[in-house]
Amino acid sequence: MRFQLLCAGLFQIGIMFATPGVLTAQSAGDTAGRVVEVEISAPSLAGNLLGTPDIQGAAIYLPPSYGSQPERRYPVVYLLHGIFDDYVVWLEHFEVPAILDRLIEAGDIPELVVVMPNAGNKYGGGFYRNSAVSGHWGDYIATDLVAFVDTNYRTKASADSRAVVGHSMGGYGALHLAMTRPGLFSVVWALSPCCLAATDDFGFGNDAWKRAAEVASEEDLQSLFESRDFYPIASLGIVTAFSPDPDNPPTYGDFPFDIVRGEVVLEDAAYDRFLDALPVRRVDDSREALRSLRGLAIGVGLGDQFLHIPPGTLAFSQRLGAERIPHRLDVYEGDHREHVGERLERIVLPWVGARLVHAE
Amino acid sequence: MRFQLLCAGLFQIGIMFATPGVLTAQSAGDTAGRVVEVEISAPSLAGNLLGTPDIQGAAIYLPPSYGSQPERRYPVVYLLHGIFDDYVVWLEHFEVPAILDRLIEAGDIPELVVVMPNAGNKYGGGFYRNSAVSGHWGDYIATDLVAFVDTNYRTKASADSRAVVGHSMGGYGALHLAMTRPGLFSVVWALSPCCLAATDDFGFGNDAWKRAAEVASEEDLQSLFESRDFYPIASLGIVTAFSPDPDNPPTYGDFPFDIVRGEVVLEDAAYDRFLDALPVRRVDDSREALRSLRGLAIGVGLGDQFLHIPPGTLAFSQRLGAERIPHRLDVYEGDHREHVGERLERIVLPWVGARLVHAE
Amino acid sequence: MRFQLLCAGLFQIGIMFATPGVLTAQSAGDTAGRVVEVEISAPSLAGNLLGTPDIQGAAIYLPPSYGSQPERRYPVVYLLHGIFDDYVVWLEHFEVPAILDRLIEAGDIPELVVVMPNAGNKYGGGFYRNSAVSGHWGDYIATDLVAFVDTNYRTKASADSRAVVGHSMGGYGALHLAMTRPGLFSVVWALSPCCLAATDDFGFGNDAWKRAAEVASEEDLQSLFESRDFYPIASLGIVTAFSPDPDNPPTYGDFPFDIVRGEVVLEDAAYDRFLDALPVRRVDDSREALRSLRGLAIGVGLGDQFLHIPPGTLAFSQRLGAERIPHRLDVYEGDHREHVGERLERIVLPWVGARLVHAE
Amino acid sequence: MRFQLLCAGLFQIGIMFATPGVLTAQSAGDTAGRVVEVEISAPSLAGNLLGTPDIQGAAIYLPPSYGSQPERRYPVVYLLHGIFDDYVVWLEHFEVPAILDRLIEAGDIPELVVVMPNAGNKYGGGFYRNSAVSGHWGDYIATDLVAFVDTNYRTKASADSRAVVGHSMGGYGALHLAMTRPGLFSVVWALSPCCLAATDDFGFGNDAWKRAAEVASEEDLQSLFESRDFYPIASLGIVTAFSPDPDNPPTYGDFPFDIVRGEVVLEDAAYDRFLDALPVRRVDDSREALRSLRGLAIGVGLGDQFLHIPPGTLAFSQRLGAERIPHRLDVYEGDHREHVGERLERIVLPWVGARLVHAE
Repeated sequence: MRFQLLCAGLFQIGIMFATPGVLTAQSAGDTAGRVVEVEISAPSLAGNLLGTPDIQGAAIYLPPSYGSQPERRYPVVYLLHGIFDDYVVWLEHFEVPAILDRLIEAGDIPELVVVMPNAGNKYGGGFYRNSAVSGHWGDYIATDLVAFVDTNYRTKASADSRAVVGHSMGGYGALHLAMTRPGLFSVVWALSPCCLAATDDFGFGNDAWKRAAEVASEEDLQSLFESRDFYPIASLGIVTAFSPDPDNPPTYGDFPFDIVRGEVVLEDAAYDRFLDALPVRRVDDSREALRSLRGLAIGVGLGDQFLHIPPGTLAFSQRLGAERIPHRLDVYEGDHREHVGERLERIVLPWVGARLVHAE
Repeated sequence: MRFQLLCAGLFQIGIMFATPGVLTAQSAGDTAGRVVEVEISAPSLAGNLLGTPDIQGAAIYLPPSYGSQPERRYPVVYLLHGIFDDYVVWLEHFEVPAILDRLIEAGDIPELVVVMPNAGNKYGGGFYRNSAVSGHWGDYIATDLVAFVDTNYRTKASADSRAVVGHSMGGYGALHLAMTRPGLFSVVWALSPCCLAATDDFGFGNDAWKRAAEVASEEDLQSLFESRDFYPIASLGIVTAFSPDPDNPPTYGDFPFDIVRGEVVLEDAAYDRFLDALPVRRVDDSREALRSLRGLAIGVGLGDQFLHIPPGTLAFSQRLGAERIPHRLDVYEGDHREHVGERLERIVLPWVGARLVHAE
Repeated sequence: MRFQLLCAGLFQIGIMFATPGVLTAQSAGDTAGRVVEVEISAPSLAGNLLGTPDIQGAAIYLPPSYGSQPERRYPVVYLLHGIFDDYVVWLEHFEVPAILDRLIEAGDIPELVVVMPNAGNKYGGGFYRNSAVSGHWGDYIATDLVAFVDTNYRTKASADSRAVVGHSMGGYGALHLAMTRPGLFSVVWALSPCCLAATDDFGFGNDAWKRAAEVASEEDLQSLFESRDFYPIASLGIVTAFSPDPDNPPTYGDFPFDIVRGEVVLEDAAYDRFLDALPVRRVDDSREALRSLRGLAIGVGLGDQFLHIPPGTLAFSQRLGAERIPHRLDVYEGDHREHVGERLERIVLPWVGARLVHAE
Repeated sequence: MRFQLLCAGLFQIGIMFATPGVLTAQSAGDTAGRVVEVEISAPSLAGNLLGTPDIQGAAIYLPPSYGSQPERRYPVVYLLHGIFDDYVVWLEHFEVPAILDRLIEAGDIPELVVVMPNAGNKYGGGFYRNSAVSGHWGDYIATDLVAFVDTNYRTKASADSRAVVGHSMGGYGALHLAMTRPGLFSVVWALSPCCLAATDDFGFGNDAWKRAAEVASEEDLQSLFESRDFYPIASLGIVTAFSPDPDNPPTYGDFPFDIVRGEVVLEDAAYDRFLDALPVRRVDDSREALRSLRGLAIGVGLGDQFLHIPPGTLAFSQRLGAERIPHRLDVYEGDHREHVGERLERIVLPWVGARLVHAE
């Protein structure tokens, strides 16, 4: 997730995609699936304070037999993208449709519908959480989007046939949804999940938080956007998702610290709330939801540029183990992005596919 | 590893198997491998104080094409058994030859030679370590056995084509050998590895250690054997492997604690040495050896009867992660033995096979 | 806490002490306090299933000026004893009255009332918890005893002037009461507190749990008592306090594991409940109660015979720190009992005294 | 340690103090000690690449009886200051001479010599370590300074009578010297010690490291100094002390990471070395040195602005406990500096004084 790339995503937000239901040119013959790009009504986002539209785009991969077998229903995998991104990253950067075509043709996965929602906003994204400021993104996925998909496409509309896979902020989202919405998904894989533990660049010891907290006016905010300085902008995404404050313009974030003479000083009660929202501290409460999954996996590259991601992933695995929750942990060489496409093809999607109920 | 089953193993020790080189009846046609049972000279065990023979049996699986392709060389997997067991557990309980035949026929693994050594003694086993009391079991595997196999069978005789897989005490052995003998194996999978951390039933808080430490005479020792009380007998295996004392008959173990008025009191210097020998505390020293592996995996069932094995395995994964060592961790439902055969077939052997160099 | 000593305590239970209100011979002159031994009505224990009397003895130290200053009110320290003990351990073994006299005379502590309740039962003790089997020992201390003391003696009857100090099971009790009853005590010191984390001899990996779980009849129970085997008897105290089962005679304990073919197999839901009751896992919930204390300290000798006590105490300190709860940790050389009296005099009581509100 | 205050210290460096041996005006009568300010030859710093003088100032407190009892020898406490500071902080900010006078007069500590060396450089300080770039500060304290003090003043010149107390960078220094130089000091107290673990603002996830790593020329360096931006300048102090590179002007630091497209990417081998230098990872190697101390204590305020200091201190205590090293941990409310003077007077110096051998 280079900053340049991220910012490309940042300034694309608002651009809506092709007519819903219209097929793209990617499909051809019986061995290739098709990608449709749709716009979905997102009532869960209505009234958010960041100006995020309540119509959201998504791309949907329909497998090769979808057109020719009009009675058949398919299991569904939701792919959740990272901060400052949108679904185009799956289509163009990771080339997911081609991966799916190859896996299906080789028989390495069953035929699947794959749903790739957008989930960005002007601060990078809403972290797939409900927030009075950034909107109820958790509800958007769990209610608006799943209902849209199950209504408009021939899916196997039960948790046993529904998986979620996410990368980075989307890895966080996949775990957060699995932990807080039992019965929605049954198979979960988080790739390089961000924000599981408040450490390293995600902790308040990162000097960059001060730059976000110093935003006091609309002018400050604009100039921060123009700087394209990743960490402070992303920080605003984080606080508006984790500790939103609708009465605190222009950022609407409630920082769990004060700045005293230029230093970050943790503010006890707010910091408690912030810590308590972190996935590493919610595993005990989510024990039953996580134990009931058909499959749970997390993976991380040791060279991740987002330095909190390796230790956060390891700490999360440790907590899962301490709560006696079955899971797979993959720790590999590689950075935040470079092996994601290859691992999706070689490991993640075959593993997910093998665990979803897909028999006719 | 039920005690009844363990003790069956215990009292089989000393029974040597069929003539070396003679083929068993298990092979038939081109789709089945053959198992040969051999006796191997074990100079590394000479002079041990437990009366363990310096000729040791092993079973060797030769793949289907071994007979018909007389020039072909094969990668090798070593399977290390658990305490109070011997190689028969692989042949009869886990039915490894049939598993290998099926996997090879399905193309899920390359054709492999699989070597199943014996490594038991009257206290259950030598933990694949070098010991002045129980014998140099580490050298036996690394030197005597590997040389025997590479000399007498058509193997790819380099680390890139040599894997080690172990269960329980054998899982410990697989990791111990990988950590202390770089360049011997390149792929390692430890199933339910024992003895990684001194906690729960493996810690000195287990009341059973006292019963072992109270053995003061040959009569005490005999009566302990007759009791078939698992933990105290296994404790003698542990101390003779980890902290042997050749000058301390009849047990030859140096316990890292004293018994003071019926209570275990840790003895500082000896306990330091004991702790320092544990794999969880040796990961930093073994960093380079472990990073150079082609594949490293550990797995554990959450319902393991040996209560230290789940937390020990999780702690070991955490230490691997902290040292930035790539690995796979599998945490699943199940106990110490029940899913071992199934996991070997479905997950472990395909994963190992895919990582070994086997191209002609 | 040698077993012999413990058992002396065990078989003293039931012996009630001198007439309430009668002064012992220990007081003399103005520089010595007096000890009264009283019997207290314990409605909180009524109906317990272990036959523990609902009248309980206690010893109360009244400071030197208590008789001569009839208007003066004093802060109060409660001393909670360990398993298989009673208040006599404070009077005779640790010689607390003489310690208090010396400290008061030297001006190292303010004049204090010190209350030493009994809290034993036939399994060793009720762990100062509420239990449908062993009785509501938490209520007994917090309600029956404190009311009795504040009614019958001239105390400063508010939390700011009320401390609790405990040893071993009493150290557990001091922390448990501080965590679950905010506003009762304001200063807490736990010496060598037991049972904070399920590890080592307190974990189910201790082979001794099986001997407790195998008790199936009254005869088994009697023969266990006669064996004076510490761990199994104490285990019954633990399960009847932590996971009582009134419908399960003769032990009335609900073990969080099954015995399957001679092995302990953790039983998931019950084990979850057991873990969740442990102080190391309740720190987050008790954050506000613990932060509001005027003083919180825990101490442990590194050579404690109860092997779980050092790691449990360290883990508890770590959890306190992670929740940003001020505290003092003292880690010293020494075993479970040997330095307790000396530390009470030199460190614990001066530190407690300095933190209690005692000004007239 | 506000940056403004720090920078005052920064630009004072190089200003040498009054003639060695000359008494200041602070002493008066028999109840007050005297402070002498001296210049000490520092051959251990010769040839450092940062232009730090090899003559260093120090302030030395001589107790009230020093002048009137010409045969008497005194125990010695060394006080080590923090980054961007010098000994003036002890004299003026914390008012140590007045504290000592009061404690001695009250009989709360024995009469002591207290030595307050300077240990700053243009990057803030050398962390009391030996470094080919910043100079051998460890040797300076252990050899040059101690020899100067024991030669020129009437001290009890053995470890039993020599303590070290440090704050922040000086707390790190106190622990580092205790761990690496057994037999030098016997009593150690680290107040708010920095740099024990690579986490939060001390971890490479702190965005500020990039600003330090981007310094490529003398002009960059000057402009960084002029910015008075604390973290990047301090970072240069850290790398020149922990991973110096004499061949890498202008900073002479070897950063354990690379900057790839604006992101910090840990560089494996150098990062390994950096981690291995951290006190939390050296406790096992220093076990004997630390166990042999007469007293070891660490303390931290939960509101420390340097966010790594509370978790680092807690992690260090945990490691001490795991290695069975006696120590005291004090976790209190308060920030990096505000309670240091008060704690020195009320807790630290009395505790240190009580543990030093001082009998005539």
